[in-house]
Amino acid sequence: MQRRDFVSHGGLAAILATGAAPAIAQTLPEIRWRLTSSFPKSLDTLWGAAEFVAKRVGELTGGKFKITNFAAGEVVPGLQVLDAVQAGTVEAGQTAMYYYFGKNPAMAFATCLPFGMNQRQQNAWWYHGGGEQAFNEFLKPYNCVAIAYGNTGTQMGGWFRKEIKTVEDLKGLKFRVGGVAGAVLSRLGVVPQQIAAGDIYPSLEKGAIDAAEWIGPFDDEKLGFAKVAKFYYAPGWWEPNSMGHMIVNTKAWEALPKEYQAAFAAACGECNAVTMAKYDHLNPTALRRLVGGGTQLRAFPRAVMDACQKASLEQYKDWSEKYPEFKTMYASYSKYNKELTQWFRVAEGSFDNYMASQKG
Amino acid sequence: MQRRDFVSHGGLAAILATGAAPAIAQTLPEIRWRLTSSFPKSLDTLWGAAEFVAKRVGELTGGKFKITNFAAGEVVPGLQVLDAVQAGTVEAGQTAMYYYFGKNPAMAFATCLPFGMNQRQQNAWWYHGGGEQAFNEFLKPYNCVAIAYGNTGTQMGGWFRKEIKTVEDLKGLKFRVGGVAGAVLSRLGVVPQQIAAGDIYPSLEKGAIDAAEWIGPFDDEKLGFAKVAKFYYAPGWWEPNSMGHMIVNTKAWEALPKEYQAAFAAACGECNAVTMAKYDHLNPTALRRLVGGGTQLRAFPRAVMDACQKASLEQYKDWSEKYPEFKTMYASYSKYNKELTQWFRVAEGSFDNYMASQKG
Repeated sequence: MQRRDFVSHGGLAAILATGAAPAIAQTLPEIRWRLTSSFPKSLDTLWGAAEFVAKRVGELTGGKFKITNFAAGEVVPGLQVLDAVQAGTVEAGQTAMYYYFGKNPAMAFATCLPFGMNQRQQNAWWYHGGGEQAFNEFLKPYNCVAIAYGNTGTQMGGWFRKEIKTVEDLKGLKFRVGGVAGAVLSRLGVVPQQIAAGDIYPSLEKGAIDAAEWIGPFDDEKLGFAKVAKFYYAPGWWEPNSMGHMIVNTKAWEALPKEYQAAFAAACGECNAVTMAKYDHLNPTALRRLVGGGTQLRAFPRAVMDACQKASLEQYKDWSEKYPEFKTMYASYSKYNKELTQWFRVAEGSFDNYMASQKG
Repeated sequence: MQRRDFVSHGGLAAILATGAAPAIAQTLPEIRWRLTSSFPKSLDTLWGAAEFVAKRVGELTGGKFKITNFAAGEVVPGLQVLDAVQAGTVEAGQTAMYYYFGKNPAMAFATCLPFGMNQRQQNAWWYHGGGEQAFNEFLKPYNCVAIAYGNTGTQMGGWFRKEIKTVEDLKGLKFRVGGVAGAVLSRLGVVPQQIAAGDIYPSLEKGAIDAAEWIGPFDDEKLGFAKVAKFYYAPGWWEPNSMGHMIVNTKAWEALPKEYQAAFAAACGECNAVTMAKYDHLNPTALRRLVGGGTQLRAFPRAVMDACQKASLEQYKDWSEKYPEFKTMYASYSKYNKELTQWFRVAEGSFDNYMASQKG
């Protein structure tokens, strides 16, 4: 399995060249890491994943490899996790790589691309399609290794005070939306707003913005958007999946005994399975509560979806011209994505659609 | 996270009551386990998962907890893994719990139910919806604990020498198909055949059977069915997901230091993510090769799907009357399944369908 090869061996030749497995026991040192997060503790799905990894690593190493979690802002601001890990201010960070698309849009491949892969497809590309290796090669100048730890699945399209019926309705719309989606939507006249989680609700309430997207029913419900915006749209085509990563400073990683590298990587891999499952567990009941409270579910009209996809493809063309790293990774990613989409039509898609067509 | 609670604590009170974390190091013993599989080495997706777990456990424990893998038939026949682990003949086994539905049909909940959950839904139920706990409670009399290690995703509906156009076409059909699906299909006149992997091809070639299902494109291609049956059907509604488990003899589990329990559980959890991804990586290209070689893809007609779903629900009613364990778990499973199906329509389903509707 290619994933295994990377995490065990990629970039770690120096360590592994030492040869035979050391005796566990006496030789293993006490190691303490600080793991800073892009997320607040209130976002218990994602924050819970960082806690899961730290706890599991402790269990795997008899408490000798101790990781302390810090929420966004405690030691490092939420959107500066990459810089802090790169500089070695902290050993590790929990983040979404697309936050750093301003440094290079190729950062987005690790998280998601608008109209790109869904969660299963992203995992396939990452673990077996060469994604993990290609992305970590790209990440080398940032002195980090990135290990996937979880996913939100397809996100929702956000909360709107007025319905979106035509492409024209996007023009001038003040929409709190993340970086990559913002770049695409601004091509259609949207005025993207960068607003921190805690400030979205008041902005929406007083009409300073017209719409806001966050994650999905469970996380969105806690921020209270339903009270100030009636229409809840799907799908969040800009995040058909959203893979999260633990990033580790390269020197800190290479200094770990290989048992501890294995512990960190295994805990992240396990967390990837259980975090996706946690979202799938929590979202259905949250959505039911929201709809029961008056939220109106809406689907983006086909013409709006088509216009957004066209704008996305234009954006990728622009980035491919300006960033060779984006161009190379996009060529591989988009071909892989197309093949997986064709396969998903056959078994997964036809079964899911049959079940979705049932009454009730 | 409930999953964590189970794997760390469920049924292990005696061990955990010893209190503070022991120093790793000197106290950890050398332990050797035999892990017998229901699968042959040629099935490298599933067999590869057993190797992955054994290797990862070795890496996590500095080689002190050594697991040796045995293929089906090497020490235990493939369909007697549960009996062997229950008796303590081997410490652990890799299997699909629905193979043992003859002991109690509730065994199937750990793997899949016809017209039941897809892979994401099964993980949600298992890790967070109480599935892992409920199933392991049920499994106690078998002296085993079951830990999920992977999934195939929605399987294909198998290889048919003639097309299935109406429900009538199922009558008298000699179909190599697994136990639970066989029970359902026999209600519609199918004559289910139990045939080991290696004997399916010759049976199909000489016309002793009319159809055969196995897993999906990558695994099916290797068995050569395409040469002797032209029509390849989807979806495999009897396996909308197929979760695999490592089962461990309870005494062997309880005798493990808790670091080794954590190592085994974490390796299985990581393997769950990477095995699903491996199938998603391998199936698309295998399907392309099959179709390029003349295989005709077909979808089961709606009327056939409806009749099969009706027969499935009747079967569950029968089993609920006869087996209290089935009744209890089915009530919980089916309610959960319904909620998740509703949610999947909104974001995942609408996005996937948009992408599936693209040309090419």
